[in-house]
Amino acid sequence: MIKRLCIIGVGLIGGSLAAALRERQQVGEVVGYSRRKETLDTARYLGLIDRGETDLARAVDGADMVVIAIPMGQYRELFTRLAPIWPQTAVVTDCGSTKTSVHADLEAVMGEVPANFVAGHPVAGTEKSGPAAAFPELYRHRRVILTPHPETATEAVTRVQAMWEAVGAAVSLMQDRHHDEILALTSHLPHVIAYQLIGTLADAGNEREVFAYAAGGLRDLTRIASSNPDMWRDIVSANQGAVTTALDQYIADLQTVRDEINSGNTAALYERFSRARATRENWIRMAEAD
Amino acid sequence: MIKRLCIIGVGLIGGSLAAALRERQQVGEVVGYSRRKETLDTARYLGLIDRGETDLARAVDGADMVVIAIPMGQYRELFTRLAPIWPQTAVVTDCGSTKTSVHADLEAVMGEVPANFVAGHPVAGTEKSGPAAAFPELYRHRRVILTPHPETATEAVTRVQAMWEAVGAAVSLMQDRHHDEILALTSHLPHVIAYQLIGTLADAGNEREVFAYAAGGLRDLTRIASSNPDMWRDIVSANQGAVTTALDQYIADLQTVRDEINSGNTAALYERFSRARATRENWIRMAEAD
Repeated sequence: MIKRLCIIGVGLIGGSLAAALRERQQVGEVVGYSRRKETLDTARYLGLIDRGETDLARAVDGADMVVIAIPMGQYRELFTRLAPIWPQTAVVTDCGSTKTSVHADLEAVMGEVPANFVAGHPVAGTEKSGPAAAFPELYRHRRVILTPHPETATEAVTRVQAMWEAVGAAVSLMQDRHHDEILALTSHLPHVIAYQLIGTLADAGNEREVFAYAAGGLRDLTRIASSNPDMWRDIVSANQGAVTTALDQYIADLQTVRDEINSGNTAALYERFSRARATRENWIRMAEAD
Repeated sequence: MIKRLCIIGVGLIGGSLAAALRERQQVGEVVGYSRRKETLDTARYLGLIDRGETDLARAVDGADMVVIAIPMGQYRELFTRLAPIWPQTAVVTDCGSTKTSVHADLEAVMGEVPANFVAGHPVAGTEKSGPAAAFPELYRHRRVILTPHPETATEAVTRVQAMWEAVGAAVSLMQDRHHDEILALTSHLPHVIAYQLIGTLADAGNEREVFAYAAGGLRDLTRIASSNPDMWRDIVSANQGAVTTALDQYIADLQTVRDEINSGNTAALYERFSRARATRENWIRMAEAD
C-alpha cells in the first residue's frame, strides 16, 4: 500500500499505473507532476491523479513512492533538478526502456546511484501516448523488469516489486546490461526495422502507388512505426551500444538471406523460413499459456 | 456469371473465391481440383465446392472459368500437365504473388502465353492456409491486380475482372514487371524481414529468455512469419530479381540508421522516425478512406 504516490509524467505509462493503483485501492493520494498545466488538468479530469503540480519540489514532497515516467531524453535534466531535493524517505523508480543509461545519468549528476532508487522497465505500451491513452489494464499479465544497482537497498526493490504485482504484472530482476541487450533485440531493433521499412518504401519511386497495394501484413508489421519519434530517438540513443550490435547482426543475417535468394538456394530459404515459423508458433503458445 | 468454375487448389485463396462466388450466386457449378482427395473432401464438407476431382482433365472439362490457386513452386509442373488439355473455350487465370515468372513458366512449357490466360494476383490473404481457413469475405474491399500479357485477349481480361469485382474486390491492371517491383516492396520484403527477425532473435543467446520479454510490438511485426514457408520460398524465388533489389536497398538504409545511432546523430534519427510515422499515418488514413 502506497500512501502518497508521485507520478513524474502522467502520460500512457505513468497515467496507466496511477489508474491501476487507484482502481485496486493500492494508493492513498496520487500527485502528478508535469511541466505543462494542461496535461495535469487532463490527467485530473480523467481521474488518473488527485492533484497536479508543475513545481517539482511540491510534487515529490511527502511522497513515499516516486515513479518517473517521462521520455528518457529528459532524464538528465530531471535528475539535475531532483538532486538537491532528492526524496530520501521515498522509494524512487523509473519506467524507461533502457537501464544502464539511467544508472549512468544518476552517477553523472549525483555522483552515485542513490540506495533508494530502483531502475525499472514495464514491458508494456502501445503506439499511443499522453494521459488520454492511459488505461488501468495496461500492465495486466505483462512483465516488469527491475535492474537494481549493487548499491540499491533490498527493501526498496521489494516495495517496487509489490507495486507492480499489485497491478497484475510479473516482475523479474536482472542486471542493467543484460536487460539492455535483451530489449535491444526484442523491442529496440523491431522499432528501427519498422520505422525504416516505411522509409525505404516511401523513397521507392511512386510512394502513393506503393502504399496503395500494401496489405494487412505490412500494416501489422509497421504498427510500431506510428510510435512517438521523440521517445524512440531517445531510447535507441540511450541504448546505442546494444542496439548497434543487434542491428549489425540483423543486417549480416539479411545479407545472408539476400545471397540465398540471389543464388536460388531454395533449400536454405525453406529451412530458414520454416524454422522461423516454428520458433514463432512456439513462442506464441508459451506466451498464451502464461 | 460463371457456368462452371474449376478451382485448381482449394486452399485459403481458391476456397475463399469459390465460397464468395457461391454466396453471391455468381456461379453455377464449382469443381475443385487437388492431388489429395482428403483436401477435396474437406472443401466439399465446408461447402466450398460442388464436386472434387483428383484427375486434372476431368476437373477442367467443360469449365468456362479456370482459377489456378496453388503454390507458385507447383506452376511449372501444373502447366506441363495442363498444356496437352489446355481448356481453349475457358478463361484461365491464376492467383500467384509474382507475375513475370508465370508468363515465363507458360512460355517455357507452351512456347507462348495463351490468349485466354490472364495473370492475376488478389492482394489478400492471412498467415493461415488450407480449405478450413477459407472464408467468403476475404476479397471484400481488397485489391486484385491483373497483368495481361501483350497476347492476352481483352475479353478474357474483362471476364476475370468481372469475377473479382463480383466478390467485392477493386481490380487494377498493370505490367507484370511493374507488379513484381511493387509487391517486392510491399509484401515480399516484409515477409523476409519478419522471418529473419525471428531467426536473428532465436540465434541470440538464450532463445527462451529473449522471447519471454517480447511484447505486442514484436508479435504484430512478426505475424507474417507464421506464414507457410513453402509458399514464401516459392514467392521470393519466383521474384528473385526484384526481391534482391528491394533487400539491397533496405540493407543499405538500415546501415545508414545504424551509423546514425552509432555516431549519436539524434537529429537525423528524429527526422527519420518522425517522417516514417507521418508517412504511415497518412497511408492508414488513405486506406481507411477507401
